[in-house]
Amino acid sequence: MTLVLYDLAGRDPAVRFSPYCWRIKMALAHKCLAHEARPWRFTDKASIAEAGSRTTPVIDHNGRWLSESWVIATYLDATFPELPLMASEAERRLTRIFSTWVDHNVLPTFARQIVSDIPPILDAADASYFRESREARFGRPLHEVTADRDQNLTQLRQILAPARMAVENGGFLAGSAAGYADYVLFAAFQWVRAVNARQLLAADDPLDHWRRRMLDLYDGLAARAPVALPERLAP
Amino acid sequence: MTLVLYDLAGRDPAVRFSPYCWRIKMALAHKCLAHEARPWRFTDKASIAEAGSRTTPVIDHNGRWLSESWVIATYLDATFPELPLMASEAERRLTRIFSTWVDHNVLPTFARQIVSDIPPILDAADASYFRESREARFGRPLHEVTADRDQNLTQLRQILAPARMAVENGGFLAGSAAGYADYVLFAAFQWVRAVNARQLLAADDPLDHWRRRMLDLYDGLAARAPVALPERLAP
Repeated sequence: MTLVLYDLAGRDPAVRFSPYCWRIKMALAHKCLAHEARPWRFTDKASIAEAGSRTTPVIDHNGRWLSESWVIATYLDATFPELPLMASEAERRLTRIFSTWVDHNVLPTFARQIVSDIPPILDAADASYFRESREARFGRPLHEVTADRDQNLTQLRQILAPARMAVENGGFLAGSAAGYADYVLFAAFQWVRAVNARQLLAADDPLDHWRRRMLDLYDGLAARAPVALPERLAP
Repeated sequence: MTLVLYDLAGRDPAVRFSPYCWRIKMALAHKCLAHEARPWRFTDKASIAEAGSRTTPVIDHNGRWLSESWVIATYLDATFPELPLMASEAERRLTRIFSTWVDHNVLPTFARQIVSDIPPILDAADASYFRESREARFGRPLHEVTADRDQNLTQLRQILAPARMAVENGGFLAGSAAGYADYVLFAAFQWVRAVNARQLLAADDPLDHWRRRMLDLYDGLAARAPVALPERLAP
């Protein structure tokens, strides 16, 4: 079989920063599924048109095209039942609620930490596309969106309270091993790590300990991922 | 066996409005556990002192005292494994994340719809206690907390997006039958229903359809519960 993941990349094709693509890369590693994570740019709509989508992640699995991280994750569990990302219908449904909460609450809050640092890591066409589309979405210049990011950290840490509570005694969100809920939230941290590596959590935050456990999974898949800064930062 | 639930009541002892106690009443019905739901008042700290708690829900199960809704729910599943509220470790952990999200995000938002209407339904001692403790918590008079409640409805409905998505095709939050996650969120609606019966959701909101399904469960346990208004409102 061949499984290709179209994976959003920066000007440097090794820098993969999409919080939605990271969910799927962690999910593929979880399921030990060989694949090619092919670099993709925002403006390269043609290469993923077959999926009927204008954004990644997109997968091409033996000619079957799928888009949207949730659709892909449930497809992977249905197609490859071993090493499930979510082991029951209840876990699947509760994980989807959690994932929607991350989409609506966590990602917009994290965006306010990094969005102005994204255009500089993109190639020229993507940088224009990103700035124009995101300034329309936020209704103001990107540097204004991140202007109070230091003051916003307190609110960001408060928003994460439900996830923090789940890992305050160690482990992962849904048990002693990582599952799809972990990948959904962790992917948001990988987004930040790739773009500007801001430290969002206090070092003694149980959630930061969890983040570091996540970085170590699958032979350090996430810890080894190149970041956009000149120097490679330690996790 | 005897199982007593200390259940927060208004001046009218039939009016039970606590969003934390409603979780446990629904959970006891789910598990078909006979019990006495004994009316309790905010200022009656002595009767629950044995549980080491100053708030309800508290249960006395054959002399074993427990407090806090989450502790009680997991105790019920551990002690009476039939008809589980949560059927797996993953479901339990994800439900706890969901419950913490409800505590931190949904209940404070719902409070801004009803908190000034609570003292009038309490007996005199409880009304003073409630007003004083809640005004200290909110940092302003209760009528100011609810002053923009009509304008706050839009934000309230947005906050509920993750739960709405889960029930947009019918069913319950974690599957085709109700479970503890449903009771946690539904209890917030029962709080509002008992106090001032404000309609928070649009009639075509999938979440309002879910709320009405919840009202019907267990022979209409929640629909039949007395409310504080002069007339008994239809669900």
